Order: sequence, then C-alpha cells, then structure tokens
Amino acid sequence: MNYQEMTAAQLAAEKEALSIQFQALKEKNLTLNMARGKPSKAQLALSNPLLTILDDPDACFVDGIEARNYGELSGLPSAKKLFAEILGCQPEEVFVGGNASLQLMHMTISEAYIHGLLHSERPWKDEPVKKWICPVPGYDRHFKITESFGFEMINVPMTPEGPDMDLVEELVKDPTVKGMWNVPKYSNPQGIIYSEETIRRIAALKPAAPDFLLMWDNAYIIHEFDGDFVPFPDILALCREAGNPDMVFEFASTSKVTFPGAGVSCFACSEANMAHMKKLYGVQAISFDKVNQLRHVLFLKDKATTLELMKKHAEIMKPKFDAVVETLEKEIAPLGIGSWVTPKGGYFVSYDALPGTAKRTLALAKEAGVTMTSAGATFPYGKDPEDSNIRIAPSLPPVEELEQALEVFCVSARLAAVEKLMEETC
Amino acid sequence: MNYQEMTAAQLAAEKEALSIQFQALKEKNLTLNMARGKPSKAQLALSNPLLTILDDPDACFVDGIEARNYGELSGLPSAKKLFAEILGCQPEEVFVGGNASLQLMHMTISEAYIHGLLHSERPWKDEPVKKWICPVPGYDRHFKITESFGFEMINVPMTPEGPDMDLVEELVKDPTVKGMWNVPKYSNPQGIIYSEETIRRIAALKPAAPDFLLMWDNAYIIHEFDGDFVPFPDILALCREAGNPDMVFEFASTSKVTFPGAGVSCFACSEANMAHMKKLYGVQAISFDKVNQLRHVLFLKDKATTLELMKKHAEIMKPKFDAVVETLEKEIAPLGIGSWVTPKGGYFVSYDALPGTAKRTLALAKEAGVTMTSAGATFPYGKDPEDSNIRIAPSLPPVEELEQALEVFCVSARLAAVEKLMEETC
Repeated sequence: MNYQEMTAAQLAAEKEALSIQFQALKEKNLTLNMARGKPSKAQLALSNPLLTILDDPDACFVDGIEARNYGELSGLPSAKKLFAEILGCQPEEVFVGGNASLQLMHMTISEAYIHGLLHSERPWKDEPVKKWICPVPGYDRHFKITESFGFEMINVPMTPEGPDMDLVEELVKDPTVKGMWNVPKYSNPQGIIYSEETIRRIAALKPAAPDFLLMWDNAYIIHEFDGDFVPFPDILALCREAGNPDMVFEFASTSKVTFPGAGVSCFACSEANMAHMKKLYGVQAISFDKVNQLRHVLFLKDKATTLELMKKHAEIMKPKFDAVVETLEKEIAPLGIGSWVTPKGGYFVSYDALPGTAKRTLALAKEAGVTMTSAGATFPYGKDPEDSNIRIAPSLPPVEELEQALEVFCVSARLAAVEKLMEETC
Repeated sequence: MNYQEMTAAQLAAEKEALSIQFQALKEKNLTLNMARGKPSKAQLALSNPLLTILDDPDACFVDGIEARNYGELSGLPSAKKLFAEILGCQPEEVFVGGNASLQLMHMTISEAYIHGLLHSERPWKDEPVKKWICPVPGYDRHFKITESFGFEMINVPMTPEGPDMDLVEELVKDPTVKGMWNVPKYSNPQGIIYSEETIRRIAALKPAAPDFLLMWDNAYIIHEFDGDFVPFPDILALCREAGNPDMVFEFASTSKVTFPGAGVSCFACSEANMAHMKKLYGVQAISFDKVNQLRHVLFLKDKATTLELMKKHAEIMKPKFDAVVETLEKEIAPLGIGSWVTPKGGYFVSYDALPGTAKRTLALAKEAGVTMTSAGATFPYGKDPEDSNIRIAPSLPPVEELEQALEVFCVSARLAAVEKLMEETC
C-alpha cells in the first residue's frame, strides 16, 4: 500500500514492523559498501594480461620514442591514436596523461586559475566573482574541484535529455559564468545520455565569458552494460562547427576499462588549446608514464577490441544493476516513496527519496553496516536542497552481498519515509 | 700555452688553426646530444625485470590494499617503507606519487599559491611581493616553476660546502622570502654535496615568513658513480630538532634508478604537513599508480638491493664522467679558459667558461651538431650574469659519441675564448 495514503495508525504499525526488520538486519553486523563507483575484483581480472603484456624491452622503443625514458609530454602517438578513435576526434587533439583524468581536469582549471586559458582576459584568480554551472544531481568530485577554487556554483536541473538548456543558455549571458561540468553519456549519477539536440545547443552556446570552459567528462563513453555501444557525437567537431573551437576540454580514461588505479587518462581539445596547455604543463612535468600507455595500447589495441572488453564488463555489471532495479521495483515502487531512472550504462543508480529523508535513510543504512555516498554529495557544497537524492553504486560488491546491502537500503528508506510521514501527520 | 698570456698575433694564429678544426668537425654532420640528464639505453636495461616482475594478479593485493583498484591517495605502505629507508625518515612521513617528482614539487607550490601552507597567513597568490632563494648555478626546471608563480628569484652563490649560508640567513629575515630550492646531494649541475654544517644551518634557519618552504630535492641521494654510497642526514629530523618541523618538503624518485619516464616519485614531510596536503591533494586525485609502486617494491626490495642496482649504474656512468674530466684536463686546463668541479655522483659536470663566452660556445657546438642545455639555463630567468656557466650532461650518449661531442665542445670553447680575448686586445 502506498505510504502516502496511510492513516496515522497504519503508519505506526508499519513503523513497528520495519523497526523489527531493521533490528534483525543490524544484528547481522554487516559491513557492506555501495559508496563509490569502484569496479569489482572480477572486473579487475579482465585486465590481468596488462601486467605482463609488455614483456619485451625492445618493444619499448615505438614511434621513434623510448617509452622507458623521459620525454614526450603529451604522450605516445599510438596512445593518442587509440583514444582519438574511441572519442571520435583527431590524434593531434589528444594529450595522454597519467592514471587519473581527475588530475587532468584539476590541472586544466588550476592553470586557468593561475595563468588563464587561451582567451582569458586575466587569470581566474583575479576575477572578483566567478560562477560555474553544475547540472544536478552530479559528480561530487567535480563539485569539490570548483569549490576548492572558490567558484559560486549554480545548480541546473537535469532532464531526461541532459541539463535544462533554456536555463544554461540564460546563465552563460553572465560574463562571470566561467564554465560548466558535464558527464554527457551515462551521467553520474543518473545514467542519462545527453540528447543530440542538447549537445548541439551546448556546442553552440554563446557565452559572454571569452574563456568559458566546457568541461566534458566523457568518463562512460564506452560503458554500456545493457545493449550495444551507443555512438556519441564528437564534441570537439561540434564546437568547432559552431564557431567555439576552443571552448571545450574533453576527458576520458581507462579507469573503468582496465585497472581503476593504474589506467591511462587523456584530454582532448583544439590544437590551439593544446599548444597553450603544453606550454603550461611543460613547467610541471617532463612526461607521464609512457610505459603504462604502451601496455594499454598493446592490450586494448583499438576501439573494436576495447568494446569487446567492455562487453565482458557488462556481463559482470548487468546482474548487479538488475538486482538494484528489481529490488527497488519490488520493495519501493508500490509504496510511492521513491523514484529512479533505469540506466543502460555508467556506474550508478540515482534514487530520489521522499524529500527530507535522504540523510536519515543513509544514517540508518550506515547503522546497519551499509556504507553509501553521503547524502547531498551529488550537489554542490554537499547540499541537496530537497534532501532527496541518493547515489547507489552497485559495482563493487558481489551479487550476494549487494542483495544484502539492498535489503538494508530498502528497509532504511522505508523507515525514514514512515518517520517523515508520521511527523507530517502529527 | 695559456690563452690569457697570448699576444694578439698568437691569438690570431690560434683562431686560424681552431677554425680549420671546427670546419672539419662541422663537415662530419654530427647530431649528438649532451643536453639533459637522461640515462642511457644501457642504464634502462638494468631495470627491464620491472616490466614483468608483477606477474601474479594475486600479488596485487598487499597490505590489505588492492593495488589495481582506486584508493590510498598517499601510496602503498610498502612503497612508503622503501622510500623511508632510502631517505632515512619514517614511513608515515612519506607520500608516494606518480612518475614525476617534479609534479609533486609543482603541486606543493601550487597548493601554497592557491590555498596556502599549514602556517600561511594567506595563500601566496595574495602576497603582494614574494621572493625565492635560488642557489646558483641550479636546476632550470626548479627555476621555471617559481618563475611561473611570479616569484622574484634571488641568486645565492654556491660554495664547495653548499649555498652561501651567511647570505641565506640574511635573506630569510625578509618576510616576503617564501622559500628556497635545494639539490643537497650532488647538486645540479655542480655535483656539490652540502656539508653537514650547511645542512644544520639550513635546518636551523629562522625565517621571518611563518610559511617559509624549504624545497629539498634529494634527486641524487643514492646516485654515486665514483665510490661507495655516502650517508646523508635526514633533513626532516634536523628541522624537527631545530624547532622547524613543518618547514621542509623533501622529494625523491626512482627516475634515475629504474625507468626515467615510468618510475615512482615521493615527497616526505612532517605528519602535520602530511595531513594538510592530503586534504588538498584529495581534491585532485583519488590515488596514484599503485601497481607501478608495487612493481618497484618487488624490484628494488630495500635500500641495500637498491644500492646494488646503483653500483651497476655507476659502472656505466663513471667512464663517461672520466671522459669528460680527462678531456677537459687535457684540452682546456692548460689554456686557462675554463674551470669545473669533478663530481662523484649526480648527472652533470658544471663548466665555467671564460666570462662572456658561454652563449657563443654553445652556439658553435650547435652549429657543429652538438646540442647542450642552453646557456643561462642554470640561472633564474635563464640569465647567467657572467654568461659563463655551462652544464655538461654526459649520461645519454655512448662513450664513443660522447668523445666526439666533447671534441666539438672543447674546440667550440677554445674558439669562443680566442674570439673574446681578441676583442679585448683590440
């Protein structure tokens, strides 16, 4: 029965029943984790050949470059080619870095802050006011970066087509609005794919800030777990065609393709931006780890081979997402206390709880031994104005553990909802 | 015969003879490189076992941590232990990063600039004037970093004991002096080892700036090529004992131990600094490449095993440095036109040419096909006030090529000196 239609007495009875269930779960002394988009051990094993694939020292000399030695700041040509094929851009638009695309994103904004971007009138540190567009819910680590540089972050709601573009187009008329976060394919946490119309409107933005920075984190560009690879437009070409060639920096990595902690990251941008950034990055590094880049080239080979590997990830991931969605359908849907989007790729299920119950739900889950991303994390400053959005990250635990964790989560969500509704009926 | 004692006619005759020699060298169409401290192919081969040493996926789970997955921002405990033993500090004082200590140095100053250090009154970006002590000659990449953050760099001459400490002690009384570069063992480029007295005076500095940052780049801490390992004091302990526990950040890497482009770097600092930096670095990265850290732990094992490897490097390096010094002794010493220090470790020979001839010497060498670090590079802003210092980097070419390059260098240095002396006698 829908909780919203229950009488005070019915709610009290439900609370009583749930409390008993919750107590029983607590007594299991579980320690389960659905906090982060961490691949599972079975997924790590898919890339074990990486460990020894580069076994011939002579193979370290490639494209006229000795991978073991210093040099080639922007990466191995063969690694640029691999990423360019995956992203659909040109190899000369690609910079291949170390193990973390987050670090490349941070470097980009950091250089804009300290020295300015190609079209900056001054370094961002000298801007008296600076604002940033944050589609919400979004990725907490993105928001932490712009928070750490002192941006005033503006929430823009996500729609099933991507960010609310009417609002975005309005916001960029303000010259203090300097940039925008995006996870355009299988957005974090909702798993939304930006529509072609949305992407075209983004590429054609006419920001008042000459150095408006479109951060295009294509973290899940090949991360379908349900169905075939979905082709995705090349944002660099679209921006170029719209007269905004230098507006966008695109990011990607193999963190959720090979080893999350020991993969290879990249960014892609216009050649003019590339020349500017190479000059700036040349001050802080001689080169990134080209031996690891070479391992990845040998292992992933090309887009087709990489997509085959992603199919194997999908086989491991799909049952977990099925478990989440089936459990929510069964345990939550009939009660009218939560909603979610069923994603076909990415790493998360975004759950919208009854407003005002997200924090309480997660506190209860924690009490019963289930750790999840903290409430509010999907919003700038960690502040969800509705106290509603919860990010479920089912990838790490094996299915059996995941099912236990989901049981705890559903009981916690129900209990929090009942408590809330009882307050309101008081 | 000493050039300085030559008559105008003798100089003219010498110039004539040298020009013929130079022309003959030019006609060889050489392309030789003594520009950077790049290890040679033979040195790279010493670490080839690294490529496949981590061949068991189960071995990736170590110290309760899965090296392949995300996490452990400050590095693997076993990697911290290895570096702590080499540096002589405590494992909990060590942060293990990616392949480049330069990047860690840049991150430290960058965070001081954007957010401030532990004892900063404000971020350095908000300091109206900020100065930095640069022992000269020094490392060009250090100077580029402080230049890029807008520091006014102050030259402090090196002595055979390290930087002129009377001058340093005087300079730090100025609260706008925010830090100091150091390569304390086998300094770049002179190969000077700071004396214990110098190190103690540095540790006991009483800077007016509460956030004075001692950058201690121990790049060559185990890099003897002539003779046994020379023990070196732990700067962290000395600073702590002198009441300056948070003044120092020490840096090191395996770039010149294993693979220059694919090694492991670290920094060491007080635990209070560590807590502060972890908070800041947590915004830009989830973790560095722990799989590569693990490879290094398996390969280098401990300090004793690492020192054995360094002996093999020494066997390759010593004949090259011998060739440099013997050639200079033979070709330059009798002429009174240059001086140098004979190092026992590190990667460079620092050559002081007749003042006003360094640029011309390197232009001539270039003309005859020998690339070297550009003149002035060993000084802040690339400006050697004497136009005298030249960094010779003999590690990369095989001995036969090196001998050819040295021949070109000596003829170029002689020709430049003769030209200069002829000008003066005009």
